[in-house]
Amino acid sequence: MLLCDIGNTYFHFFYKGRIWKEEANTLSRKNEDYRIYYISVNDRNEKKLLESHNNCLNIAKYIKLDTVYQGLGIDRKAACYSLQSGIIVDAGSAITIDVMQEDIHLGGAILPGIESYRKMFSNIDVLRLDFNLNVALDALPQNTQDAISYGCLNSIILGIKDIAKDNFLYFTGGDGKFLSRFFKKSIFDNTLVFKGMQKAISQNNIL
Amino acid sequence: MLLCDIGNTYFHFFYKGRIWKEEANTLSRKNEDYRIYYISVNDRNEKKLLESHNNCLNIAKYIKLDTVYQGLGIDRKAACYSLQSGIIVDAGSAITIDVMQEDIHLGGAILPGIESYRKMFSNIDVLRLDFNLNVALDALPQNTQDAISYGCLNSIILGIKDIAKDNFLYFTGGDGKFLSRFFKKSIFDNTLVFKGMQKAISQNNIL
Repeated sequence: MLLCDIGNTYFHFFYKGRIWKEEANTLSRKNEDYRIYYISVNDRNEKKLLESHNNCLNIAKYIKLDTVYQGLGIDRKAACYSLQSGIIVDAGSAITIDVMQEDIHLGGAILPGIESYRKMFSNIDVLRLDFNLNVALDALPQNTQDAISYGCLNSIILGIKDIAKDNFLYFTGGDGKFLSRFFKKSIFDNTLVFKGMQKAISQNNIL
Repeated sequence: MLLCDIGNTYFHFFYKGRIWKEEANTLSRKNEDYRIYYISVNDRNEKKLLESHNNCLNIAKYIKLDTVYQGLGIDRKAACYSLQSGIIVDAGSAITIDVMQEDIHLGGAILPGIESYRKMFSNIDVLRLDFNLNVALDALPQNTQDAISYGCLNSIILGIKDIAKDNFLYFTGGDGKFLSRFFKKSIFDNTLVFKGMQKAISQNNIL
């Protein structure tokens, strides 16, 4: 089963437990014997896949997440759909935090991604300093670089903790591994979206 | 006593309890009978004041804050200098959080300003939504606009609370009044910088 998560920049593929990403403009041709089960948050990129591959199926409609949240992206939906209960943190260009409880999505919050914080400060003259992601969080900063790093990192961690309460956290996304270090009850799992897709496929007997 | 705090965009003046701001390019001429006691974080703007006024004194060197922090801006220094103990939060284009304890500056942290968060999200296509600063912080958001507003606002508040602990907070700056609403033990005081300047002037008998 070949799965594809079409984003704004990359196509993420999943096949037999292996994940890899391809750029939209250098998309490799896949064997047409394999149907590509996909979801997409980007119409233009979806078109690129469909133009070069005949055997594709958009499975978005099979991911029936129980939620009242308006505007949940399909990738976020798929990641949530993979879990019965827990906190899903997808740390990419934005950091999304979602709460699942007994198969119900209770809501979520969004923070800027770590790279966005970095860019934000690069726009302020005297604060044009790189992050120190190893900054100590148990002592007050004594210079500007540490003050910026501490301020942003600590507020991200506290924002996640406040929502997570005592629940188990599932981190995914580019900065997920890094952020998961700050949470005892957590794992990093870059396959959450694909697990949600697989669940939708098997529950709807699509294969 | 006429005081002036020269920033990157504005000149803030203080005279007999009254505060007003002027832009660098439309700086009004002040009566030369009054000496202008000033501090500055912007060399170009400082030059503009000195070119148009003869009776000026930079009092930066009199603001002797007890700190090991490297790179503390003179305006931030002045605000801290105005207090013996407490937390100073200057919420402008950046949000600085400083800790004073018995006349000693223990350190500080820096977060992006509220406007920076707003701009940051305006760069992400699907998230191009305005903030809802009245978002409820006691319930999980159920749409993207609330999710962004909640995520940012809550993480700012938590970041400040984490540093403030049980201490009293003094808010200043453009978003200071708004943020002070979320803290019981706090006041908004837009004169902190000038109070610090006044203290330096009186302690050094400059007048």
